[in-house]
Amino acid sequence: MTEPCALGLDFGTASVRALVVETGTGRELGSAVADYRHGVIEAALPGSSERLPGDWALQHPGDWVEAIAKAVPEALAAAGVARDSVVGIGVDFTSCTVLPVDAAGRPLCLLPRWAARPHAWVKLWKHHAAQPQADRINAMASARREAFLADYGGKTSSEWLVAKALQILEEDPAVYAAASSIVEGGDWIVGELSGARVRNACGAGYKGFWSRERGFPSPEFFEALDPRFRDMPDKLGGEIVPPGRAVGGLTPAMAERLGLTPGTAVAAAIIDAHSAVPAATVVEAGRMVMVIGTSTCHMLLDQRHAAVEGIGGVVRDGIIEGFSGYEAGQPAVGDLFGWFAKLAGGGDFAALERDAAACPPGARGLLALDWWNGNRSVLVDASLSGLVVGMTLATTAAEMYRALIEATGFSTRRILDAFEAERIPVRELIAVGGLAERSPLLVQVYADIARRPIALAATANASALGAAMLGAVAAGVARGGHASFVDAARAMAHLKEKRVEPDPAAAAAYDALYRDWLELHDHFGRGGSGVMARLRRGRG
Amino acid sequence: MTEPCALGLDFGTASVRALVVETGTGRELGSAVADYRHGVIEAALPGSSERLPGDWALQHPGDWVEAIAKAVPEALAAAGVARDSVVGIGVDFTSCTVLPVDAAGRPLCLLPRWAARPHAWVKLWKHHAAQPQADRINAMASARREAFLADYGGKTSSEWLVAKALQILEEDPAVYAAASSIVEGGDWIVGELSGARVRNACGAGYKGFWSRERGFPSPEFFEALDPRFRDMPDKLGGEIVPPGRAVGGLTPAMAERLGLTPGTAVAAAIIDAHSAVPAATVVEAGRMVMVIGTSTCHMLLDQRHAAVEGIGGVVRDGIIEGFSGYEAGQPAVGDLFGWFAKLAGGGDFAALERDAAACPPGARGLLALDWWNGNRSVLVDASLSGLVVGMTLATTAAEMYRALIEATGFSTRRILDAFEAERIPVRELIAVGGLAERSPLLVQVYADIARRPIALAATANASALGAAMLGAVAAGVARGGHASFVDAARAMAHLKEKRVEPDPAAAAAYDALYRDWLELHDHFGRGGSGVMARLRRGRG
Repeated sequence: MTEPCALGLDFGTASVRALVVETGTGRELGSAVADYRHGVIEAALPGSSERLPGDWALQHPGDWVEAIAKAVPEALAAAGVARDSVVGIGVDFTSCTVLPVDAAGRPLCLLPRWAARPHAWVKLWKHHAAQPQADRINAMASARREAFLADYGGKTSSEWLVAKALQILEEDPAVYAAASSIVEGGDWIVGELSGARVRNACGAGYKGFWSRERGFPSPEFFEALDPRFRDMPDKLGGEIVPPGRAVGGLTPAMAERLGLTPGTAVAAAIIDAHSAVPAATVVEAGRMVMVIGTSTCHMLLDQRHAAVEGIGGVVRDGIIEGFSGYEAGQPAVGDLFGWFAKLAGGGDFAALERDAAACPPGARGLLALDWWNGNRSVLVDASLSGLVVGMTLATTAAEMYRALIEATGFSTRRILDAFEAERIPVRELIAVGGLAERSPLLVQVYADIARRPIALAATANASALGAAMLGAVAAGVARGGHASFVDAARAMAHLKEKRVEPDPAAAAAYDALYRDWLELHDHFGRGGSGVMARLRRGRG
Repeated sequence: MTEPCALGLDFGTASVRALVVETGTGRELGSAVADYRHGVIEAALPGSSERLPGDWALQHPGDWVEAIAKAVPEALAAAGVARDSVVGIGVDFTSCTVLPVDAAGRPLCLLPRWAARPHAWVKLWKHHAAQPQADRINAMASARREAFLADYGGKTSSEWLVAKALQILEEDPAVYAAASSIVEGGDWIVGELSGARVRNACGAGYKGFWSRERGFPSPEFFEALDPRFRDMPDKLGGEIVPPGRAVGGLTPAMAERLGLTPGTAVAAAIIDAHSAVPAATVVEAGRMVMVIGTSTCHMLLDQRHAAVEGIGGVVRDGIIEGFSGYEAGQPAVGDLFGWFAKLAGGGDFAALERDAAACPPGARGLLALDWWNGNRSVLVDASLSGLVVGMTLATTAAEMYRALIEATGFSTRRILDAFEAERIPVRELIAVGGLAERSPLLVQVYADIARRPIALAATANASALGAAMLGAVAAGVARGGHASFVDAARAMAHLKEKRVEPDPAAAAAYDALYRDWLELHDHFGRGGSGVMARLRRGRG
């Protein structure tokens, strides 16, 4: 037998990645990706020609199993390890991706009786058709002063579980009634692997209104939304387990299908973004992980559980057991730069990056609000939009590009300020994701604006590595894994050697610009001007 | 002898155009353009290698004479008319383009003693090095409550005569002392043609602080700026004459050089933009001429002489004798669209125009302040800069382009509102200039936003045609010209047949957007936010 390994299964929007990692070193031995056969289902149900509404996004749960049956053997082969070497399996999953299942855990959409009903299928995280339900949930929770609201910055999203469940109830009550349970995709897969039907605290907390202290909302809350919704807590059953806790052993059937050993430890799942936290070496307070991609997700651990202004969510045990895990977000980062590169004639990032890097802080007199996709943290307002000010006839594309990078940096600093206002310190930033790799300028600008050093995670597969770490912790020391996340992080997670330090002169220049940025932020974001909301309504 | 003709000489920044026009019909019979040999002198004086400062822009007066000696015979040949047919000559000129001359009217820069001194040369309108002088002039005029200030919206420009003269005094007092007079280029050329050393009321009024009632500022005002400046009124000598008034006959020497008849009537000059007013058929109140090019100049006649907020200038007899001529301006129009087309990857105006025209009013949720080159009218603040708000990830280049067109339209409406606030009505707009030709979208958007019909001048050479009309009026009826501008306009100036009418639905949509635009205009322009001024200071 070779060195013990853990298997990370990273379920993305279009494909799954299987990653084999040495538990002793974190060395990534082999990896394979398999696409989902049906991808994202937006046009019509499989085998149907009936059109789905425009803002729907579904998935086929059979695709997930089929994809790991392909990717896992390939990853093992690529790693060159025997099946016996794999001591634990961890899962990270997009969220909130949910499906109604029957009492046996079978997806309703795979039962002939319900297969033709759109609401029987998996609602992918980016299914946005439950906005009316989310609006009513927010209004009702606010009117009833529901305690859970403070954990989500005062506003919950149409992407989350209860809004999606209420949409099922209202639009297809029979499907709702037939559902014994409505579960996260990650929990369903863990159930398929192990037979254990549990809920991970990460998904339940960040997307299901659950907390360790309060549990789920009361039947009265659900009833107030709709009398038929009163039994919703029954559909949220199952033990709630912190990510990485061992929930059972791999079933013989799945072991056969994946080419693994029956009984291999299976860990409770985690949301994909949150999986990057341990993979970025963060298993303690004070070090914020930023997953920088098309959007940015900020995650932070702390012993304190506080109501931080406009936070995406805070969940006890939601990321690492024993900590409150905080999540914040910027909904347009890489997407914003991509938008601009396209506007500027076709996407030559290398030239923009080079010229913008030659430009001084402040982009020669420009300032921007990066709300191209609304504001997700602090203001939590989807009606906000982008703004750029300061252009002259001499303003160049590279200057505008730099101003947009700086705008996302100022938004990051505003989030840090919101944490510090609640006495939750952040002393270091850890960047994860391709954009942090590709844009040294962005990392330096963020360090300068935030006045904090930025380290970069060494892995290019942070979510999958984090999932493997869950598997290693679930396996435990006796089986070649780890006793705790602290041990797993010390052995398996690594940072790049060079940390980016703030430049004092640039940081001072940004302090002054940040004051002006805050003036714009508050004027347009806190009711000084209602122009953005009116423009959005007029968009037609 | 063929039909009587007038000759218009249109002195631009880089070249002169000579245009031969039938006085009876306005038919443009022939035209020729000749470049100035030295163009705009920005690097070093002719024959010198000493560098000029960065914001200097000079010209060589000999170029002007040389250029008409080439262009006039060519224009006559192209028109196929005999020299005897030309009954009058009119001149329009860039302004404020000024030069120091000796008692005989000779440019100091052409005298060997002064030729090596930069301040002896012509300061072109866009020479911007006198900003410190302009700042002091504005402060002093304001402190002394000088009556002239109200005629310029409370602020005078570094481009104008007194600032340029004060720069000469301060930086080369010997040149200042040697100058018997400091004159506009247009007046100097009229002097060369006719021997008559007069000043045109247009240049003196719009650029020289002169008014019919008050004359030039007092010696005490100039003395307050600098004791040595007390004799400035002596250097502003010469009769002040409305444009188009006959000042004399063509000298034999110039007749020989141009291939014309000695004694041909020569008219007092006019500023190039203002020359477009009669050429656009406007010789009465209520019809605003917009010369739309890289920037836009708005001109309006009225019997009333009022202090309109932030007006560029108001001059009695300044354009058409008997009227107060009002001037307002937007300093970035065609330049702004050119900037954007370049930003958007290379200037395909046709595609932008087509796609923007397909877009509804409001450019799908965008709003912009068009202050890329500051604000020249109403706010009169060069420290202001451009702003765009409302972008989402779905925003297209064509939408942004349309938003910029709309922004310049809103600025136009704001100028119209400033006139109407002083009970100076505007019932029709007349567009002149290449941009109005090339962008039917722009003309329609302006009509919709302004809620007024827009007619287009028929001529493509409005300034030169206006100059020819001056010549025709100077010639008078007896010589085959006209008795008045009203007669000249009826015969010689024409509009295109199709007038663009406002679309009621679009106009209503723009009314709502204009309220939001005004909110941004006042917030950023009237002290609600000082962000723009701070950004400009930080431009480095």
